[in-house]
This record gives sequence, structure tokens and C-alpha cells, in this order.
Amino acid sequence: MRQSQLFTKTRREAPKDEVAKNAQLLIRAGYVYKEMAGVYAYLPLGFRVLEKIKNIVREEMNAVGGQEMIMTGLQNPDVWKKTDRWDDEKVDVWFKSELKSGGEVGFGWSHEEPITEMMKQYLSSYRDLPQYVYQFQTKLRNELRAKSGIMRGREFVMKDMYSYTTDEEAHKKIYGSVIDAYIRVFDRVGLGDRTFLTFASGGAFTKFSHEFQTISDVGEDTIYVHDAKKVAVNKEVYDEPVVYEELGVKKEELREVKAIEVGNIFDFAGIKSEQLGLYYKNEAGEEMPVHLGSYGLGITRLMGVLVEIFADDKGLVWPEAVAPFRVHLVQLGTEDEVKTEAEELYRELTGNGVEVLFDDRDVRAGEKFADSDLIGIPQRVVVSQKTLTEGKFECVDRQSGTTSHKSLSELISYLTHA
Amino acid sequence: MRQSQLFTKTRREAPKDEVAKNAQLLIRAGYVYKEMAGVYAYLPLGFRVLEKIKNIVREEMNAVGGQEMIMTGLQNPDVWKKTDRWDDEKVDVWFKSELKSGGEVGFGWSHEEPITEMMKQYLSSYRDLPQYVYQFQTKLRNELRAKSGIMRGREFVMKDMYSYTTDEEAHKKIYGSVIDAYIRVFDRVGLGDRTFLTFASGGAFTKFSHEFQTISDVGEDTIYVHDAKKVAVNKEVYDEPVVYEELGVKKEELREVKAIEVGNIFDFAGIKSEQLGLYYKNEAGEEMPVHLGSYGLGITRLMGVLVEIFADDKGLVWPEAVAPFRVHLVQLGTEDEVKTEAEELYRELTGNGVEVLFDDRDVRAGEKFADSDLIGIPQRVVVSQKTLTEGKFECVDRQSGTTSHKSLSELISYLTHA
Repeated sequence: MRQSQLFTKTRREAPKDEVAKNAQLLIRAGYVYKEMAGVYAYLPLGFRVLEKIKNIVREEMNAVGGQEMIMTGLQNPDVWKKTDRWDDEKVDVWFKSELKSGGEVGFGWSHEEPITEMMKQYLSSYRDLPQYVYQFQTKLRNELRAKSGIMRGREFVMKDMYSYTTDEEAHKKIYGSVIDAYIRVFDRVGLGDRTFLTFASGGAFTKFSHEFQTISDVGEDTIYVHDAKKVAVNKEVYDEPVVYEELGVKKEELREVKAIEVGNIFDFAGIKSEQLGLYYKNEAGEEMPVHLGSYGLGITRLMGVLVEIFADDKGLVWPEAVAPFRVHLVQLGTEDEVKTEAEELYRELTGNGVEVLFDDRDVRAGEKFADSDLIGIPQRVVVSQKTLTEGKFECVDRQSGTTSHKSLSELISYLTHA
Repeated sequence: MRQSQLFTKTRREAPKDEVAKNAQLLIRAGYVYKEMAGVYAYLPLGFRVLEKIKNIVREEMNAVGGQEMIMTGLQNPDVWKKTDRWDDEKVDVWFKSELKSGGEVGFGWSHEEPITEMMKQYLSSYRDLPQYVYQFQTKLRNELRAKSGIMRGREFVMKDMYSYTTDEEAHKKIYGSVIDAYIRVFDRVGLGDRTFLTFASGGAFTKFSHEFQTISDVGEDTIYVHDAKKVAVNKEVYDEPVVYEELGVKKEELREVKAIEVGNIFDFAGIKSEQLGLYYKNEAGEEMPVHLGSYGLGITRLMGVLVEIFADDKGLVWPEAVAPFRVHLVQLGTEDEVKTEAEELYRELTGNGVEVLFDDRDVRAGEKFADSDLIGIPQRVVVSQKTLTEGKFECVDRQSGTTSHKSLSELISYLTHA
């Protein structure tokens, strides 16, 4: 895409009321727009990053047999009353309103209840199981404070998956597959080495739940990691000896770090199904509650975490897999031959399937480089009088800062085979 | 995808409270689930249709230079007060709630205000114009009655595009391009011949607006069409002589029909920009209000209209361009050789990029055919002992009912070159 046609512009300053680094940089670089505290619109660059993250997650959810669908934002109180989660005393993040036709209505902050209620239409026999269903849904949560940018908004995008199985054994199988799928997601977006499968408290249904936590100084959680085993323990359960039995590690081997929760996995066993009335007939003809697992992964939060982890003092730095474009093509100077060469390179690269943001604007070099650093596309390719004379383009890796010079064929080969 | 793994099932009966044909059939075939009156979840089959429609619209919006982004659902009252559209007396479809942090919040039923407010960050000079921006957004409207299934829900998906231009002349150019793009969309989804560009009343800002209306007995609007010129006049403005001057047709040449609005286009001129404070400096250095155009297209409504128009007494009938799958592969019988042949055909077709729903279930033929008719995939391909003996597969076109017999190579050639 041509930068001259992109409606967003970079800004020198973030809004004064924005304290989170991720939102500050994303606003300055034109990825997001702050609608209200904790409520952000995603502009063309930000929208592209979100879609890249979603597609990675989608591929991994499909690979474990997930069926994509989309639940509703509007929520029926009757369904939530069955599990005692409608009351504001029990759940403090509801947005609620009144239907003109009469009665209350809620706005979805989670979807375990409605999707389990829905499944009563479709699941009645052991032959109907297992089923794995997921969605990318915009969730609304009436948070009292919003101060972590897009990492904890009042409106955010989440991937939520639900597994419906006959029993604990079948549940453990999909549970393990989704953990593996999550590990692949975090590897693919470049967070694999600092993201830990973490033991946390399990709430009413099970002794423990699992989280994925990414080590980060801005994290709100404290966890204790075991580097060799690549597992961690949330502070909530740090003092429970049974954790160490299960993990097969010693408490003293762990180190304390700050971390941010990027995914969570709950085992509801048959409890929610019993509350909502989702039963199946087993092979012996007995009515049994369906075993429910719930698997969350915050899409917009993950984008915020990537900013917090990889950004440097010049601006954003995107891992290749989620960058809005692969190449930032920067044309320096407006001489005819530079223009022609830049246009031709733009055509060549896009013709070879490379996603390019083409800075064809008529602004000075310093501004172009500063914008390019701020926007953070992995590879910058410069076309100028100088590079024309040399017969090679200047290529700068955003993350390492390494500069190289490549001919057209070298560049295409590098970008399409990497 | 294997039908044995699809979690949805067909139903013989629709819910008793569901009066709209589109929702009745979509629920029975497992495309949508009714959460509440006017609120529907989209199940895997329905989700696929929605994505197909969105991608067609996306391609056409990108082709006219549209930049995709995503605004927020939560709405800031301050923005809407500037145009006097926050008051429930003025706009009667608001859902509203209270922020825990204090103050009211709305839920987006339209986005002209917030997107124009946002543009103040990015547009300040004639050099920044024109800009065309769009989104696919889930809108919430607190409708008093919901009785048209997914054609008029309380929660629905809309594509809304906005054009920001310097003046009337630049506006007319993009306005004409979007009309052409809409015509291409309706052609591609199979509604071209019965969808009319329609003159309607223009509200506060202009004498007329344009709608796209699709002729349908279940339509809520009355329009008067001119078949030769392929234009129409909404009843609202049927008695205004100036319409006929502009159209260059005679009132007597029109015929009255029922129709449903599938798209609308508004010219707000500079009014909303003046209310919200979106000005640009022209070449002479003068402050001018930015010219706003707004272009809506109902994605879920379009899906409902396609059902109403094409469904027959056996069930749904999808145009190829939006069908959830291209082929419904039906295996009849569970003999080893039938199974092997069906599995091989499934591999061959999917390997050639053909989207296939594979009915590998162990149920009787009558049920398979009834389900296949109800689900409405364009091409049914049957594998049975009989077709094995003949060395050709039986192919049935869902819309015409035409049966043909094709070898593997004939079938692949037909499906991949059609």
C-alpha cells in the first residue's frame, strides 16, 4: 500500500492521559485510536496486525479440530441466572441495559454459559462427542480502571474455544492438544521463549487451572518460573505443596518474575453442564453431564504484549509473523529515476507476493526514517540516488539494525524464501 | 469438512416463535442459532456464508480505494451530543448503560459520528483528501419488534464505508464509484437482476438519498421500478415531480413492487463535519468543512435476503459465490469399496482446492438426501455401489435439479474451471 494514501499519520506525542507504553506507541504510530479510556479503534495498520494474529490462532485451532462460529454480543439474563453469574454482586464487569420490548439484556464479557446452553440443541448422545468450537469475539467488560492500554481494555477481542467431551479422559486429550496449540501460537508470534505454562488456582470446579504467562516488567501477575522445565507457578498457589508434587520440581528451583496472562485454560468438568442442563446418553443409556473445557486467548492483549516486549526507544518492532507489512519501501528524493526505480521495485515485490508499505510521500529523509522506525516494519528497503549509483538497495533490519545491500534478485530471493 | 464432525444437526421444525422464512430455514439447517428474538449466533455453516459475503464486499471496497479498519462498539455520548443524536427522543434504537468509572456509555448502532470525530486527528489539509474508510461492524439496535429473522435483527453485521472529500465534485466521483461497486457486489451474489438503485428521501442534508432495493415479497418497502433503465423510486418520494426530471423517466412507466433495502448511500455534504468540527485548509488557506459520504451494506441482512429469494420447498439454495461449500459429497452405504471411493474423491476434490462437505455419516439415504436439500450446497455428488458399477459419480445441481454423471476427471475439470 502507498503511504501517501494511508489516512493515518504518525504523531510526536501520545495523549497525555495515556500511561501505557503499548497504547502510547500504537497511537503515535497510527495503529490505534483512543475512543475512550480502555476503548480503542484499530486503524488500517493495527487492523492488519490483529488479522495476522487471528489467522495464526485460527490455523492452530483448526488444526486441533476446532469449528469456527460466532456467538452474540447481546446476552439473555435467563441463561446466566442458571449459573448464578447474572448478579452484579457475583460478576462485577457486566454492562447491562433494557430491551425496548421489555426486560433486561447483558453484553457479553464471556461466553461459557450461552454456548453451553446452545449445545443442548445439538449434543444428546456419546456419538455426538467430542466437539470443539471457537470464536473470535469482541468482549465488553465494565472495568473500574483502564490503565494498561490495549492489554486490559473495556472492549477487546478474544479467541475463546470450548471443548465438549464425554469424560475426564477424553477431556485430558483435547486439553493437552490445546496446550500444544497455544505453545505453537506463542512460538509463531515470537514469544515462545518467554511464555510459560503456569499453574494457577482453579476456582470452584477444579483444584488448578492453567494459564499462559509471558514474562514482562509491565505484567500485573507474579509468577515463579522453572526455566529448565519451562513451567511456572502463579503466586496464588505458590504455597501449596501439592503443586510441586504435580510438577515434579522443588520450590527452591523457581525464580520470581513479573508476567502478563496471555491465555487461560479451565476445566469445568460437568459442573456448568449440570447447572445449564447439558446431558448426553452414554453407551449404557445413562444421562451424564457433558464435560466442558474453556480455552481463552486474548488477541488484542497479545498485540499489546508484543509491543511491550519488542519495542525500543525508536518505536515499534514487529515480529515478521504479525507485522502489518513485510517491507517498508522508502523512496528518498523525487528525481524521475529514483521515482521510476522505486515504483518498479514496488511492483516487483508486490507482484512476488511480498506485502509492502511504500513511502512515496514527498517529505524529507529524516522524517521518513523516524516514521519508519516508529512504525516498526521488519525490513526497510531504501531507494535513492545513492543506491541507484551502487546498483543495490539498502536494506535495514528493524530489530537488529543490521544494514545490507542487495540487488533486486537478491532481495526478492531473500524475501520470498526466508 | 466431514459432516460426522460438524456439531450442528438439521431439525425438522423451527422454533414456534420464529415467523420469518429465512430464520426458520437457517435454524432448521443449522446455520444460525436463535439466542433471543432478533439475536442470532452464526454456526459453522452460517459463519462460512457470512465470510464469503464479507470477502466479496471487501474486494469491491478495496478496489475503490477503501481502507479497512474497525471502530469500537462502545460509544462516547459527548460525540453524539454534538450532532444531537444521543437523546432517546431523537434516536430510538440506542442501547445505553453506565460506566463503573462514572458516566453514560452507548452501544454502536451507527458510526458516522465517531469516525468523523476521529478523522480530526488525521485530516487537516486538502493534501490529506480524499480518504475512503470502511469496516465490518456488529451493530446493536434496540428495535421494539424483531420479526424478520436475520433481515432486521437487534444485533447484525454491517459494512459501513465513509468518504471524506474536499467538495461536491470530488464527492460525486467516489459516490459514483461506490454505486458501481455495489452493483458488482449484488451481481456477484446473484441478486443483480432484481436489485435496483432507488431514489429515496434524503433527510436533513440532501433532497434525495440512494438505496439499493431487492425485489422481494417479504420486503417492508414499496418501490416503483423502471425496468428498462434499471432504476427505481421509493414510495416516500413517488409524488415528487423533481424525481422524474432527474431520472429522465415518466411516472407512468414505473411498476409497483415490494422490496427490501440491502444498501443505502447518504450524502451528508459538510453538515456533520461542521457539527463535529472536521475542517481542512484548501489551497487558498481557507478552512472548509470536509464533505462526508456514508455507504451502508447489510451483511447479515443480505444473507437473509438470499435465503428468501432462492430457497425452495425443500430448503436452502445458495448461489455458488456465497455457498458454505461448493460440493456436498454424499456417501451412500458403508461397504468398504464405497467408503474407499468416497474418501479418495474427498481427498482429490479438497486437494484440488474444492470446498467439500463430506456426508460420511452412517444414516439412511433418505435422511442424507433430505439434509442435503435442506442445507442447499450448489452441487451434490453421490458415491454408491451403483455409481461405482457405472464408473461415474451422480451429480445433482441443487438449484435446477439437473442430474448428470461424471468421471473423476470430468468432475474435477467441471469444478475447478467453472
